[in-house]
Amino acid sequence: MFVQETIEKMNAARSGDHEQDLETLIGQLHRRGLDAEAILTQVGAFEVAVPSWALGAGGTRFGRFPVSGEPRDIYEKMEDIAVIHRLTGATPRVSLHIPWDEPEDPAALRSHADALGLGFDAVNSNTFQDQPGRRLSYKFGSLAHPDAAVREQAVAHHLHVIEVGRALGSEALTVWLADGSNYPGQMHLRRSFERTLDGLRQIYDHLPPGWRLFTEHKPYEPAFYATVVQDWGSSLMLAQALGERAFCLVDLGHHLPNTNIELVVARLITAGKLGGFHFNDAKYGDDDLTAGSIKPYQLFLVFNELVDAARDERVDGFAPAYMIDQSHNVKDPIEALLQTVDNLQRAYAQALLVDRSALEAAQNGCDVLMAEQALASAFRTDEGPLVAEARRRRGAALDPVAAFRETGYRRAKARERSGGAYQPPQSL
Amino acid sequence: MFVQETIEKMNAARSGDHEQDLETLIGQLHRRGLDAEAILTQVGAFEVAVPSWALGAGGTRFGRFPVSGEPRDIYEKMEDIAVIHRLTGATPRVSLHIPWDEPEDPAALRSHADALGLGFDAVNSNTFQDQPGRRLSYKFGSLAHPDAAVREQAVAHHLHVIEVGRALGSEALTVWLADGSNYPGQMHLRRSFERTLDGLRQIYDHLPPGWRLFTEHKPYEPAFYATVVQDWGSSLMLAQALGERAFCLVDLGHHLPNTNIELVVARLITAGKLGGFHFNDAKYGDDDLTAGSIKPYQLFLVFNELVDAARDERVDGFAPAYMIDQSHNVKDPIEALLQTVDNLQRAYAQALLVDRSALEAAQNGCDVLMAEQALASAFRTDEGPLVAEARRRRGAALDPVAAFRETGYRRAKARERSGGAYQPPQSL
Amino acid sequence: MFVQETIEKMNAARSGDHEQDLETLIGQLHRRGLDAEAILTQVGAFEVAVPSWALGAGGTRFGRFPVSGEPRDIYEKMEDIAVIHRLTGATPRVSLHIPWDEPEDPAALRSHADALGLGFDAVNSNTFQDQPGRRLSYKFGSLAHPDAAVREQAVAHHLHVIEVGRALGSEALTVWLADGSNYPGQMHLRRSFERTLDGLRQIYDHLPPGWRLFTEHKPYEPAFYATVVQDWGSSLMLAQALGERAFCLVDLGHHLPNTNIELVVARLITAGKLGGFHFNDAKYGDDDLTAGSIKPYQLFLVFNELVDAARDERVDGFAPAYMIDQSHNVKDPIEALLQTVDNLQRAYAQALLVDRSALEAAQNGCDVLMAEQALASAFRTDEGPLVAEARRRRGAALDPVAAFRETGYRRAKARERSGGAYQPPQSL
Amino acid sequence: MFVQETIEKMNAARSGDHEQDLETLIGQLHRRGLDAEAILTQVGAFEVAVPSWALGAGGTRFGRFPVSGEPRDIYEKMEDIAVIHRLTGATPRVSLHIPWDEPEDPAALRSHADALGLGFDAVNSNTFQDQPGRRLSYKFGSLAHPDAAVREQAVAHHLHVIEVGRALGSEALTVWLADGSNYPGQMHLRRSFERTLDGLRQIYDHLPPGWRLFTEHKPYEPAFYATVVQDWGSSLMLAQALGERAFCLVDLGHHLPNTNIELVVARLITAGKLGGFHFNDAKYGDDDLTAGSIKPYQLFLVFNELVDAARDERVDGFAPAYMIDQSHNVKDPIEALLQTVDNLQRAYAQALLVDRSALEAAQNGCDVLMAEQALASAFRTDEGPLVAEARRRRGAALDPVAAFRETGYRRAKARERSGGAYQPPQSL
Repeated sequence: MFVQETIEKMNAARSGDHEQDLETLIGQLHRRGLDAEAILTQVGAFEVAVPSWALGAGGTRFGRFPVSGEPRDIYEKMEDIAVIHRLTGATPRVSLHIPWDEPEDPAALRSHADALGLGFDAVNSNTFQDQPGRRLSYKFGSLAHPDAAVREQAVAHHLHVIEVGRALGSEALTVWLADGSNYPGQMHLRRSFERTLDGLRQIYDHLPPGWRLFTEHKPYEPAFYATVVQDWGSSLMLAQALGERAFCLVDLGHHLPNTNIELVVARLITAGKLGGFHFNDAKYGDDDLTAGSIKPYQLFLVFNELVDAARDERVDGFAPAYMIDQSHNVKDPIEALLQTVDNLQRAYAQALLVDRSALEAAQNGCDVLMAEQALASAFRTDEGPLVAEARRRRGAALDPVAAFRETGYRRAKARERSGGAYQPPQSL
Repeated sequence: MFVQETIEKMNAARSGDHEQDLETLIGQLHRRGLDAEAILTQVGAFEVAVPSWALGAGGTRFGRFPVSGEPRDIYEKMEDIAVIHRLTGATPRVSLHIPWDEPEDPAALRSHADALGLGFDAVNSNTFQDQPGRRLSYKFGSLAHPDAAVREQAVAHHLHVIEVGRALGSEALTVWLADGSNYPGQMHLRRSFERTLDGLRQIYDHLPPGWRLFTEHKPYEPAFYATVVQDWGSSLMLAQALGERAFCLVDLGHHLPNTNIELVVARLITAGKLGGFHFNDAKYGDDDLTAGSIKPYQLFLVFNELVDAARDERVDGFAPAYMIDQSHNVKDPIEALLQTVDNLQRAYAQALLVDRSALEAAQNGCDVLMAEQALASAFRTDEGPLVAEARRRRGAALDPVAAFRETGYRRAKARERSGGAYQPPQSL
Repeated sequence: MFVQETIEKMNAARSGDHEQDLETLIGQLHRRGLDAEAILTQVGAFEVAVPSWALGAGGTRFGRFPVSGEPRDIYEKMEDIAVIHRLTGATPRVSLHIPWDEPEDPAALRSHADALGLGFDAVNSNTFQDQPGRRLSYKFGSLAHPDAAVREQAVAHHLHVIEVGRALGSEALTVWLADGSNYPGQMHLRRSFERTLDGLRQIYDHLPPGWRLFTEHKPYEPAFYATVVQDWGSSLMLAQALGERAFCLVDLGHHLPNTNIELVVARLITAGKLGGFHFNDAKYGDDDLTAGSIKPYQLFLVFNELVDAARDERVDGFAPAYMIDQSHNVKDPIEALLQTVDNLQRAYAQALLVDRSALEAAQNGCDVLMAEQALASAFRTDEGPLVAEARRRRGAALDPVAAFRETGYRRAKARERSGGAYQPPQSL
Repeated sequence: MFVQETIEKMNAARSGDHEQDLETLIGQLHRRGLDAEAILTQVGAFEVAVPSWALGAGGTRFGRFPVSGEPRDIYEKMEDIAVIHRLTGATPRVSLHIPWDEPEDPAALRSHADALGLGFDAVNSNTFQDQPGRRLSYKFGSLAHPDAAVREQAVAHHLHVIEVGRALGSEALTVWLADGSNYPGQMHLRRSFERTLDGLRQIYDHLPPGWRLFTEHKPYEPAFYATVVQDWGSSLMLAQALGERAFCLVDLGHHLPNTNIELVVARLITAGKLGGFHFNDAKYGDDDLTAGSIKPYQLFLVFNELVDAARDERVDGFAPAYMIDQSHNVKDPIEALLQTVDNLQRAYAQALLVDRSALEAAQNGCDVLMAEQALASAFRTDEGPLVAEARRRRGAALDPVAAFRETGYRRAKARERSGGAYQPPQSL
């Protein structure tokens, strides 16, 4: 297959410089007492799910600028994700959105996925839009709606999503609710929360064995006055009330200005309720930018908490789910996802490079500057050769974006997928 | 006409209580040394333009929930605006968006407007979307685009908008540019600004006699890293460079968290560059909520600056343009606009109720508490009877929303305008 | 006593206008189906504690501008609070700060308070400063400190504060911890929280019968990277772990930008953990401005949640503690407190004016605009005559600030308390 | 001198690893087409002024935790700065604060500085505090005060500061005004600005030949409702009105949440009014943390604008002044400053590592991802060996903090400077 051939050709062409850089880095790490091989193994084992909605160009309420060759259905999306997985070795699972990417025949889709070497991560519901055929509108809420009939419709939708997920081999349900209000008074703040909990209980009771339920909080948008699950505190209250298979999902863009997100992560770990992540980055709101593109130090600090918890024997059953959730408005979606995976691997590698005994000693001795430097020096290390090598060992690309561009995949798809479709105006 | 009859009927039914409340209020104001008649005259003279895009249900990037009976074209939008004007006596002008509401025959539209008693306020351009038939895409910018051909297309669009506006009798052009970037490096921060200024100069040079040009700043959205005209400072630099007919437009939702907006207004007045407003309200970002619905005291404080400047003989040629810019996602658009006009009239009335000599004395004497109370006591006054009376004297409704509901206008339009259109699912 | 005489004299002088305004208002409320007498009774029963640190001029890290006649010790502070109580009828309790206002002889202070008609509300600890005589520094934390000896000192301090409070008749302990870090790495995010909980458990175990413990969260300041009890979620985790006498205290200035505070209040009510409030207002951070001075609608919306919960039979044992926590940097502290109490009484009265059956009907019918108007029209009502009358019925002042100025109290104290003290430079 | 000997000893001990790392890095940069020697020269030429107030422990309004061995007067502060300069080779100038560090005999201080190899950067005024001996208070403002007598006192203070600066060899005056208000109404928003401009004109007229005047904006603190010079727009209006020697100073902590600071820098460059910087970092407000400690990518992006402008021949006379302005609350002030200089040198080196022709090509071709990568790959490069070498070539330390700790300077000063001074309680 041409992607694989391109990877091999490109890797071979770069192997000289790469091996020299890697050797130098391993030597430097050795000097700092770090075991590069162990880090390579861990970075190589990193996996993150790709959401089915991230393969097409995203947009804002002001418009969307399509990309030539966008996938037209879930099969074409899976094809793109398989390319990403081949180039990175790190994206073996898809997180499906129902109904946007609901398969007519789940068994057929699962076979298709198997053939591509892909599986299915958490399934995602949608009660923030009205879909053709739904009798009642979610304009004024779904699980939180004052009308029991709307709430029943929303519960039924979630049970259906679980059924689809079960057929595909998923083992988790992610519930992001847009329920909220735009104006003071519109929604009773306590009762809407109680109704939401009641609906979630019904959904939770239908979770198949082995499944987890993730509630995802968000402070605002699309509701602009009050959102029912507005912060991690509300998400925690729900997860506590539901039971031991309910957890909180942290989307990196779902926080008020200046939130210390790594601190939220730490608290959820302490509460035993950290379910996983929707990775992205943001400067202003839920900007859904490439993870690590705006605040790379923050992303590192989040991974620092994860690595710290994974090594802490007092933290039981620590297994957060990693998913990407971005809107690719101006980049080629496949390229953006390749870059995202690289950024996540880098942040994880940096967190693994922290000298934790030096850090702990400095913390216990109140040596603020040296504690800070233990993190900063790991962050400053150019971890590029490590993550490239980790990919190479999995048969993936040293430089995924360069290899992707070399394949000519997008141009080929632009021809192949354009039949009768809208042709965007010319852009550079 | 049934709207007029309803107004008269409803006003008559409420006149007893209204007159009693008004008389009481006038007595109280008299006790405070305030001339209620003068205030009534000023409130009655308040006018604000309605944007052509505010008559249909708005949405977010997550979806839109249509309203039954939405207007299907600019003619039906004008019809709705005429109803709002009749009920409030304060919205005699429309602010048109090109190309969303571009008339095929401007002269015909102008005649239609004349017949409805309406005119045209500032016209608005659109380079934040690609439109069918445009050869080049604005995906990576318009006036700021690195490619001269795209910039020329954008300039040409603005000249066309001016032409349409001239045919309609407009006398101002509002330029809100979405130009910006989502990632560091994407756009050269200085050169993109210089290119924007260059394009605006070409547009400014084509302004018809008597026209003004408004530049509208916005910190983010749809660009999520850097926006070319991101704040009032950048907008001021543009207006200064363009010339004396260039002014800055303040949208109340286009500010970073915690911005003191009334202070921005004051600075633009001092600079002689306050062009006008896009009224709305916001809690988080550019939420486009009903003006005065979230931070009513802030809206009052903005009007306080306007009243203060209008009375200041050292402020020359003070004539800001007032426009509404909201997104009606969960309210009936007509009702929301009626409520908005009422809120604006209330805020203006409150500002007129300030005892300015007491305020000035307290300011000069550093009596912080009494200076604050001079504003707070005006704000606390229930100005309802005043604004109701100001409307009644213009033949409009004491209670515009109640009168509108009584007319049954929306239900009638839902039948009349539904031919073949999408029927939204049932909502309460 | 001259304060009482002044109140009576001033009330008499204003009684004509007042009674007329009150009668008019009662008539208007009657028309809206509201029982003014019931509201008068409730407003009259409103009480709020005054913190011992609010009687002197506050400052910032950039300086403090003293006020002439500031109280020099807790006895003089009690004297000032007694004046405030006399003028408002609403501040019968003092919230004491230890060690700033620690009495040498608690029994003597209690007798003094009795004589003034005052009692003691929650006592407050201080581990954010080093005090003369303390052996170990809190520079790097108190309950969260990595060194057990510092933690023990901090626990011992809290037990001492409880002892003082018990001697004074207090029944609650408020714990605001400044523990946190300024730099990534400085503090282990999870372990510092665990240590804090461990310390709080020891303190909680020593609570006298009938006492409650309040934990107060704050996102930042004085720690500028991470704070141990940074938000209501962390505060809730502590209160849940401690037990049924532990509750969360909400300071209105301790929130990240754009936080919907009334929603936080609603969640804590649902969790059964709303302990009470530190009232103030803020535009940027923990600005400690006069409650209701910047965002009066927000204050009303908070009280709206409180009134709603108080009427909800499903909410058990709802009895939040009300305290003021402000920094009076530019106003006379006594005047600022009088104004604050008035603002709180107004916000409470407005919340009582909400037509709750209309609100509930609009909420259940998804009539967004009418639900909003149910709140907005209560907020717009000029509740002044109601709160004035509620005060008058308790023997307090119709207009507390005006009456206070008439007494000449501050000038008298400036002479009386100035002996040898620093004389501030001349200001207006 | 023992500092110099320690530097030499430590550099020698580290030279083996250093030279190997440097050689490797130079090779990698060569591969990327970058001239390491040119970068070394530029980094070596980087200089930044140290403020006289940063040598002692800083504090917050909640307290200050002293450091043993803090300098007790300006002479001891200069001694500490000389050590920093010796260790970094980059801090040859002091920015003096009047009156905090006003010398009794400026000529003597200048001689002392000469002997230490130090000079004087911009002098700083203080009208945010009352000082002993000043007749009138700044409680309600200085240049913006309604009372002309206070304004005259404030102008006179500035003229005095200029005189002191002239005697010391300074060539710039930095004016940060705390003038503002805590409550709506307290201050007339426009008149207070006009009075401030009037005062600044008087000060500007007294600038000695060759001097520059910097106005420094800040959104809030100590004023919590409105600040007179609240943002760069207001600062620009002042600089434009004053004349060609007036410029705007950017403090990295003086921005509202989410501000794109590099964009503000770009605009001020375009306006020809970028005067310089107060370097620090912040997560929440004006936190005054170590530059680069919280948002290192942002610091790099700021330097990226500076390097870009310095290379742009259309930017005339680009010579911003670099100063540090931090509050060292939990770190040893000397160590924190050494770390700060290192962080600044690193950010500058990273900006010099950007492949600007690749960046420009990607920008012009709208290749968003590659434009971003041009910045990200420079940021990811471990620039440590470059900045260490740049220091070594100036006779300074490869690792300034390690060398400082080795000198034992702080312990020696703790003994030397402690005579009779307050001894802080024991901390780790």
